[in-house]
Amino acid sequence: MTTATAPARRIRRLPDRQTTDRFALHDLLDSELVGHLAVAVDGVPVIVPMGYARVGEHVLLHGSTGGGFALRAASARRPVAFSVTALDGLVYARSLFDSSMNYRSATVQGVLEVVPADETDAALLALSERLMPGRPAEVRGMHRKEVAATRVLRLALDDVVMKQRSGGPSEEPDDGEDHSTWAGVVPLERRWGAPIASGLTPAGTPVPDSVIALSTVNGADATLR
Amino acid sequence: MTTATAPARRIRRLPDRQTTDRFALHDLLDSELVGHLAVAVDGVPVIVPMGYARVGEHVLLHGSTGGGFALRAASARRPVAFSVTALDGLVYARSLFDSSMNYRSATVQGVLEVVPADETDAALLALSERLMPGRPAEVRGMHRKEVAATRVLRLALDDVVMKQRSGGPSEEPDDGEDHSTWAGVVPLERRWGAPIASGLTPAGTPVPDSVIALSTVNGADATLR
Repeated sequence: MTTATAPARRIRRLPDRQTTDRFALHDLLDSELVGHLAVAVDGVPVIVPMGYARVGEHVLLHGSTGGGFALRAASARRPVAFSVTALDGLVYARSLFDSSMNYRSATVQGVLEVVPADETDAALLALSERLMPGRPAEVRGMHRKEVAATRVLRLALDDVVMKQRSGGPSEEPDDGEDHSTWAGVVPLERRWGAPIASGLTPAGTPVPDSVIALSTVNGADATLR
Repeated sequence: MTTATAPARRIRRLPDRQTTDRFALHDLLDSELVGHLAVAVDGVPVIVPMGYARVGEHVLLHGSTGGGFALRAASARRPVAFSVTALDGLVYARSLFDSSMNYRSATVQGVLEVVPADETDAALLALSERLMPGRPAEVRGMHRKEVAATRVLRLALDDVVMKQRSGGPSEEPDDGEDHSTWAGVVPLERRWGAPIASGLTPAGTPVPDSVIALSTVNGADATLR
């Protein structure tokens, strides 16, 4: 909530920087659900958003066997780039020039691998558990033909560049700016909203534990900063 | 907030689809602040997140003259792809296979143009006004050397593909699934948090109108759905 009476919390400056902090990388990848995959096709970049999940030192992506340029990129062993960005806030400086955004971003370069058929079931389960924690235990198992119709792709977190900016605007006591002007940060927050039942869910069906737990275990709350 | 006592709001199904609705495109571009720009360099895709603003039928991007692959891509007239995605919610079906995400995504293909020097000032102002509405009126104007150190790039919204999914899970009365299991959507909501003053902002300095207005005019509230 943005109000004029908000307490005057104080922030330290922490400028743009590249980081090799593995925890920060995992934290970012675990707080987001969608990234952008880019492939070059005859010199022209193609880019698509894809749901993903980090499992260990890979990101898992999935698509149907029916098509998808990610699957073709994997088959052709084309180099890909996969980027995940979290916007954390707007930085209000005393000039437009110094105004900025707080963010965390990771880009992974590499070649997509198709997860072998005998590992697809486990990979799909891991992906589902990450995107909707607890949900796999609440619904039926995957049918054989569903598993057969799905390809899970993975990209190793070997060649990764992570950048981030956090903290307040660049400012110094003698920077010549008018310090009577308010400067600071407005954080961007996310949260899961009230669940909405589908049309065929009988009235009175309780919202399942997985959905109740979502607000505390996945995504939104984890990225409040 | 996710609670078991949330009212059982009902949703219609609206499946994945490509749309040519210009209003939907503008609405998406105006609700987000960061996109991903991809360029192919010697067959290898390079991707970076960039702040942007839609102004009319262009998106404006900016970077310093000191570097940046976007500027090099513009100079070399390399084809680029720019993608903006909003994640709107998680779709809980009665199987993992039918579970999904609600989203809106637009990808623009084209060639970046450098905004001519005599239009840079106006373009920077338009960009600033979109990213931080009202802020340009609260701070000093751009210094000549700041304008000179900045290049604004633009990409025409000519070749655009927009896709979106909204609504509840795929379900039919005779789909063979166990309808006693809860299914539905959990929306992802965003909001601007309490502003945090910088270290050199004097105690008691009022939070400016631009920041107060942010919660109603830009980003977060506009994307609640």
